[in-house]
Amino acid sequence: MKKPAVRTKLVEKRSKKAGLPPGTLVYVGDKDLGPIRITYMDYDEHNFHEEQVKTIEDCFAFKTTPTVSWINIDGIHDVRLMEKLGNHYELHALVLEDILHTGQRPKYEEFDNYLFVVLNMLSYNQENQAVESEQVSLVLGPNYVISFQERVGDVFDQIRERIRNAKGRIRKMNADYLCYSLIDAIVDGYFAILEKVGEKIESIEEELIGDPTERTLHKIHSVKSRMISLRKSVWPLREVVSALQRSESPLIQATTGIYLRDVYDHTIQIIDTIESLRDMISGMLDIYLSSISNRMNAVMKVLTIIATIFIPLTFVAGIYGMNFVYMPELKWKWGYAAAWGVMVSIAVVMLICFRRKKWL
Amino acid sequence: MKKPAVRTKLVEKRSKKAGLPPGTLVYVGDKDLGPIRITYMDYDEHNFHEEQVKTIEDCFAFKTTPTVSWINIDGIHDVRLMEKLGNHYELHALVLEDILHTGQRPKYEEFDNYLFVVLNMLSYNQENQAVESEQVSLVLGPNYVISFQERVGDVFDQIRERIRNAKGRIRKMNADYLCYSLIDAIVDGYFAILEKVGEKIESIEEELIGDPTERTLHKIHSVKSRMISLRKSVWPLREVVSALQRSESPLIQATTGIYLRDVYDHTIQIIDTIESLRDMISGMLDIYLSSISNRMNAVMKVLTIIATIFIPLTFVAGIYGMNFVYMPELKWKWGYAAAWGVMVSIAVVMLICFRRKKWL
Amino acid sequence: MKKPAVRTKLVEKRSKKAGLPPGTLVYVGDKDLGPIRITYMDYDEHNFHEEQVKTIEDCFAFKTTPTVSWINIDGIHDVRLMEKLGNHYELHALVLEDILHTGQRPKYEEFDNYLFVVLNMLSYNQENQAVESEQVSLVLGPNYVISFQERVGDVFDQIRERIRNAKGRIRKMNADYLCYSLIDAIVDGYFAILEKVGEKIESIEEELIGDPTERTLHKIHSVKSRMISLRKSVWPLREVVSALQRSESPLIQATTGIYLRDVYDHTIQIIDTIESLRDMISGMLDIYLSSISNRMNAVMKVLTIIATIFIPLTFVAGIYGMNFVYMPELKWKWGYAAAWGVMVSIAVVMLICFRRKKWL
Amino acid sequence: MKKPAVRTKLVEKRSKKAGLPPGTLVYVGDKDLGPIRITYMDYDEHNFHEEQVKTIEDCFAFKTTPTVSWINIDGIHDVRLMEKLGNHYELHALVLEDILHTGQRPKYEEFDNYLFVVLNMLSYNQENQAVESEQVSLVLGPNYVISFQERVGDVFDQIRERIRNAKGRIRKMNADYLCYSLIDAIVDGYFAILEKVGEKIESIEEELIGDPTERTLHKIHSVKSRMISLRKSVWPLREVVSALQRSESPLIQATTGIYLRDVYDHTIQIIDTIESLRDMISGMLDIYLSSISNRMNAVMKVLTIIATIFIPLTFVAGIYGMNFVYMPELKWKWGYAAAWGVMVSIAVVMLICFRRKKWL
Amino acid sequence: MKKPAVRTKLVEKRSKKAGLPPGTLVYVGDKDLGPIRITYMDYDEHNFHEEQVKTIEDCFAFKTTPTVSWINIDGIHDVRLMEKLGNHYELHALVLEDILHTGQRPKYEEFDNYLFVVLNMLSYNQENQAVESEQVSLVLGPNYVISFQERVGDVFDQIRERIRNAKGRIRKMNADYLCYSLIDAIVDGYFAILEKVGEKIESIEEELIGDPTERTLHKIHSVKSRMISLRKSVWPLREVVSALQRSESPLIQATTGIYLRDVYDHTIQIIDTIESLRDMISGMLDIYLSSISNRMNAVMKVLTIIATIFIPLTFVAGIYGMNFVYMPELKWKWGYAAAWGVMVSIAVVMLICFRRKKWL
Repeated sequence: MKKPAVRTKLVEKRSKKAGLPPGTLVYVGDKDLGPIRITYMDYDEHNFHEEQVKTIEDCFAFKTTPTVSWINIDGIHDVRLMEKLGNHYELHALVLEDILHTGQRPKYEEFDNYLFVVLNMLSYNQENQAVESEQVSLVLGPNYVISFQERVGDVFDQIRERIRNAKGRIRKMNADYLCYSLIDAIVDGYFAILEKVGEKIESIEEELIGDPTERTLHKIHSVKSRMISLRKSVWPLREVVSALQRSESPLIQATTGIYLRDVYDHTIQIIDTIESLRDMISGMLDIYLSSISNRMNAVMKVLTIIATIFIPLTFVAGIYGMNFVYMPELKWKWGYAAAWGVMVSIAVVMLICFRRKKWL
Repeated sequence: MKKPAVRTKLVEKRSKKAGLPPGTLVYVGDKDLGPIRITYMDYDEHNFHEEQVKTIEDCFAFKTTPTVSWINIDGIHDVRLMEKLGNHYELHALVLEDILHTGQRPKYEEFDNYLFVVLNMLSYNQENQAVESEQVSLVLGPNYVISFQERVGDVFDQIRERIRNAKGRIRKMNADYLCYSLIDAIVDGYFAILEKVGEKIESIEEELIGDPTERTLHKIHSVKSRMISLRKSVWPLREVVSALQRSESPLIQATTGIYLRDVYDHTIQIIDTIESLRDMISGMLDIYLSSISNRMNAVMKVLTIIATIFIPLTFVAGIYGMNFVYMPELKWKWGYAAAWGVMVSIAVVMLICFRRKKWL
Repeated sequence: MKKPAVRTKLVEKRSKKAGLPPGTLVYVGDKDLGPIRITYMDYDEHNFHEEQVKTIEDCFAFKTTPTVSWINIDGIHDVRLMEKLGNHYELHALVLEDILHTGQRPKYEEFDNYLFVVLNMLSYNQENQAVESEQVSLVLGPNYVISFQERVGDVFDQIRERIRNAKGRIRKMNADYLCYSLIDAIVDGYFAILEKVGEKIESIEEELIGDPTERTLHKIHSVKSRMISLRKSVWPLREVVSALQRSESPLIQATTGIYLRDVYDHTIQIIDTIESLRDMISGMLDIYLSSISNRMNAVMKVLTIIATIFIPLTFVAGIYGMNFVYMPELKWKWGYAAAWGVMVSIAVVMLICFRRKKWL
Repeated sequence: MKKPAVRTKLVEKRSKKAGLPPGTLVYVGDKDLGPIRITYMDYDEHNFHEEQVKTIEDCFAFKTTPTVSWINIDGIHDVRLMEKLGNHYELHALVLEDILHTGQRPKYEEFDNYLFVVLNMLSYNQENQAVESEQVSLVLGPNYVISFQERVGDVFDQIRERIRNAKGRIRKMNADYLCYSLIDAIVDGYFAILEKVGEKIESIEEELIGDPTERTLHKIHSVKSRMISLRKSVWPLREVVSALQRSESPLIQATTGIYLRDVYDHTIQIIDTIESLRDMISGMLDIYLSSISNRMNAVMKVLTIIATIFIPLTFVAGIYGMNFVYMPELKWKWGYAAAWGVMVSIAVVMLICFRRKKWL
Repeated sequence: MKKPAVRTKLVEKRSKKAGLPPGTLVYVGDKDLGPIRITYMDYDEHNFHEEQVKTIEDCFAFKTTPTVSWINIDGIHDVRLMEKLGNHYELHALVLEDILHTGQRPKYEEFDNYLFVVLNMLSYNQENQAVESEQVSLVLGPNYVISFQERVGDVFDQIRERIRNAKGRIRKMNADYLCYSLIDAIVDGYFAILEKVGEKIESIEEELIGDPTERTLHKIHSVKSRMISLRKSVWPLREVVSALQRSESPLIQATTGIYLRDVYDHTIQIIDTIESLRDMISGMLDIYLSSISNRMNAVMKVLTIIATIFIPLTFVAGIYGMNFVYMPELKWKWGYAAAWGVMVSIAVVMLICFRRKKWL
């Protein structure tokens, strides 16, 4: 029974910085994540440039250029780099703290010159069959998006392709559309997780009909734990998307509204599915429990049938094993046969009784 | 135990198009559905025309004619056809995407020149005794309704009859009334499903009073799963109808409002019924579980009665089967008879005890 | 286990008219209800007239007379009569449909010149010990109330007496007060049902303390089903009364407001009681289940005590029943007595053990 | 298992007056409560007068005197007296009905010249260890409070002392403060009940750790029933206090607002405690149920150990009790000893097995 | 099974002062807490002074000084001191009552010249492994914060350090920021408790997979009780922080708003975690219960296997132990061997059966 990743992380990290002044930048995640990778994509309808830069200062110019820029930072464990970035882009100290302090509840905050979104990016790791959770923080400025990820690897590759190849409308649209696209990709990732869970649930259902064992129970429990984690991520996600959609910030254009509504619909769909799956799982638990009872019933029946048939027979045999001097039956010629007759009759009567009770 | 159709579909399809730009038209359903069938009905109070057309272009004129037109498209797997239609009727890219992307949560969206409604049409397939779910998308324009279905066959035949024969007020009313009629027919279809479920529940209740087996449990589970699916369809349906009813779009006339309120009442009634049935089902599970316990109790009693009567008797017989040289009872004349007496007494006392405990 | 009346009715009837145009008058109830009975009471503070009429036309004059008129129609299966009435009193087609289409969810609708209320009238049938449910529809006009019932017999007799004898303030008040009185009488009828349920629950509680059997479980289940039905009636009832109370229609005078608030309080009280009783019932189920377990425990203890005492004894007897040539104990003078000694000791030790474990 | 007082009362009383015109004064409680006791306290900052009067007319003057007057009526079964009082103080007929009709849900109503509050006063009767519930109705006029109780005895003695001795600010304040004080005393009474329930729960928890019996279950059930009753009283109580606090009636002065908020906080605290206790209780039920299962497990283990050790031994003994003519072992010199050896070996192996399974 | 601290305290204390006039200062906690310790910190950006004072009067000057002052009072059992302080700082009598009356529900109240906040400070006592709860009351004036604690020792040490060393922005900010910092520290303390609970839950999960005993159940129950207490503290905490954040009091500056929002997010995160942990716990209970059933199953299987194998064998042996004179088998040369053959065959058949049923 693996411990559900998200919960433990959440419970463990907080206390590392309890009591520190708010806005103190402390990275709370794993320390051995290697160097930070900074990449950017800068584009408008006609031009496109993509590069991996060495220092964060290389990205400072994008704050004011009219083209749309997407600065992606893989790795957030370099506190000094974060401070420099925060100062240049005028991010609030608490925003920087939230970016570094992974394990955040998804949230959305609106500032005068930028919007700040924190999300959990879930992905299914095929190797160790675990759901991996990573905090993605997005800062949406007038013509730039900065995305912060805990480590290299994300669900944004298709978006990068679309930007490179000018596929769809993304190159014609503004930074808010880019931000929407990133959120949409993350939300789509949840569906993939739900599919995996759905498959797992189906395989458990098959086990339940066949021959459920204690392992089945632990599987049910593990799926349930995963649903609890998922649910904890998705409900605030819905709030975030809803707030974005209802936002009146000038940073989000009216035309993007319908796309955000679409994402919002997806989050509702995810929530619906999760709630349904939870109902399924609780039903499976009931089946498991009653299948245990049923099996116990079967065991008991076997014992009862065998015992109730043979106990009286053994008694009869015991009777004629007694050593009384005066026992007339013992000397009868057909005594032995008669004893067998009695015993067979008892057994037959018993069997008829059991058949009537439908135990056989 | 069949896997509940709606859930699985929902969970499976999403990921096929994860990461694609929004508005990309991808059909996600089964591919082998045969040719698309396009039919239309064009009518006003005095005229009526019905035809099955070959190309979608034949229906383009209806966008502006003053008569009411109902264009029905059975089969949505022809992406190019959809694009042509969408361009002509000025449908938003996301609307087209939702139409193609079956497995949607029921939804309602309002645009300047049309309203868009997605619903699940449920029907009970008598052959394989399964509930079939199909996504129906409706586009309501000023004087036309376009309906999209996944395949041929629907619950609209009575409406067609009413239009053909000018039965009721439908020929006198506008396109919004036609749209209402279609929604009403779909909602009425839910009642048919609920009846089937109701019958199933009653048959299970009878099994429960009679002789519940493990199959009964799986039936309960299967009904429960169906209720979970139904519930997932109906709650958003209620929201859709409620939004339609409260809509202030000029496309819906004031006189249609009361009809929509009527449909809304029906959705509430469906929800009430589902919630009550769910309560019923959970009660049935309790009965099942306690009937297992009761049966185990019965088995145990039989075993206990037989064993507790014969074990002491066998012991007595064992005593006098011992081979001690000096055992005075063995030589008594009435020893054997006395032994029988002792044994019969024990048995009678036991039986009296059991009767007192009400085990017999 | 009776099937709960309200649920089944609701589930069954709908589909009879699926697909018909809205407003089509189809009576969906039992067909063999005998002739329709139309009675009216016409009164003001000083005058009173009561009569049973033959044709509905005899009641048409009351639409405009300044006196208060209560037209009561027992039996709604005459569709033509309904149509005539509806035309004269200008009732909306959907209102007529709701009146005929019994099994409605309680509802309230406001029209310009009349208010429409649908309620479930519950009464306890002493003969077959069942709760009977009947749909009562009320139309409140400026100076008349029309009430529609499925069959003869209702809870309004005391109101009739009060009108006849000018008891209380009813003769001094307007039609809205009459309408309130009818609703109040129906709501009071729910308390009678709750009392019956309360008595049933108390009798089940006594069974539970005494000697619960499988019948007790089915009683619990049956009460629970009844509560589910009741609950389904009462929650919408509360909404109806609440809407009436908050209504700003000129048909309801300000002075009637406080009376409606009183009825509203009663519906809340009914809901509170139902929810409490539901809690009670679920507690009773727990007791039942654990009493089964306790009984199984008792059975098992008896078996275990008998078996664990006698099995070792029988073993000892078996030992000395062996036929080995060289068994010194067999030839001892006190061998037999010693064997008895051993066996008694074993039994005593066992009994002490059981007493320590508090099994005896 | 006592039946929970509040529920039964509520369910039983209603039907006694079903169908009567609203505002009919009928006393529904016990009839043999002795004479009615009317007392009053009349005071301002400097003067104080207290008296028990014979006729209700003696209290009529207080309606207009500028001093604060508290008229307390113990016993509400004298309908004529109530009518006289109601006429003089201009109470609405429905208010009088609510006062007489005990078993009301706590409620608050605002009239032009007075406020009306109905509460349940709970007290713990030390003698028969039961919670006693009594309806207290309060009428707050411009400078008087009239309190109605079902019988002599209440939780107001400390308030009387404070008025007599001019303790605290009560003598300096207005009638609304007096009314608040009475409500506060009633709410404080709930805490006393909760303490009793808390003690009961703790004693049950101890039983659960020690040796739970079927009586423990019935205790749990009884506490649970009491919580259900309490909860039914407290939730509407919260609404009453909340409505009072938010009231804009000129009868409640601004300075009293903060005191009412304090009472409101207390009701919330009571609700929180009740909900927590309910959670506790449901946890206790789980423990009880699993302790039954555990005990059954223990019983089964004893049976299994004894049986599985001795059954094979008895078999061995049975073998050598057979009377075959040709059985070589029987004639061996060490046959008997060898048989013992086999039997002891079997027993030892069994014991080792059981130890490995941790059954011993 | 420890009784959950918070609940009992809450339930017990109330009644000590039932009936007293509101605003009466009565200390309800333990009496033997030693002398009261009063300390203050007075600072602005450039100056800092810290001192422990003897009499409360030494702190009276801070009411008007322009510097920010934090007066901390450890111990609230000196009623007279409280009165003096209350008079000088013009605290409402009910506020003083709430400060003294520990066991309050967290609350927030707004007055013209100060804000009042009551919180529960939770800390984990490493020694006796218990969660300790202490009421902290905060009064925020224009340029001072007064904090009241039940006893010496708190979670504020890091804040003191930050003030002393001018770390972070605290010395540059106003009293409202100090107040926020205190609340933040208390909320952070909840995370520490959650971690401990998380660890406990993980250790229980391991026990559950391994070998759950009755102690495991009591651990689950104890964690569950703790969660109930926590939950009761946290929900009102959320309301308090939310009210603070939305407050429009001039005592809270706009710049502090974002920090309060941050605290609010933390409370939401705590609530999410608690709800998830509760779900976990209920899942663990299910596992525990089914592991009991599984073990019973295992016990039953052993018994059944042994019994069903040997009972028939013993019967066979019993047959040939009978003493009939005419029993031909007994005289056969291979009779004995044949009997063994029969017995071995029976055993083998039985074993094959069991293997088929997967019992072995």
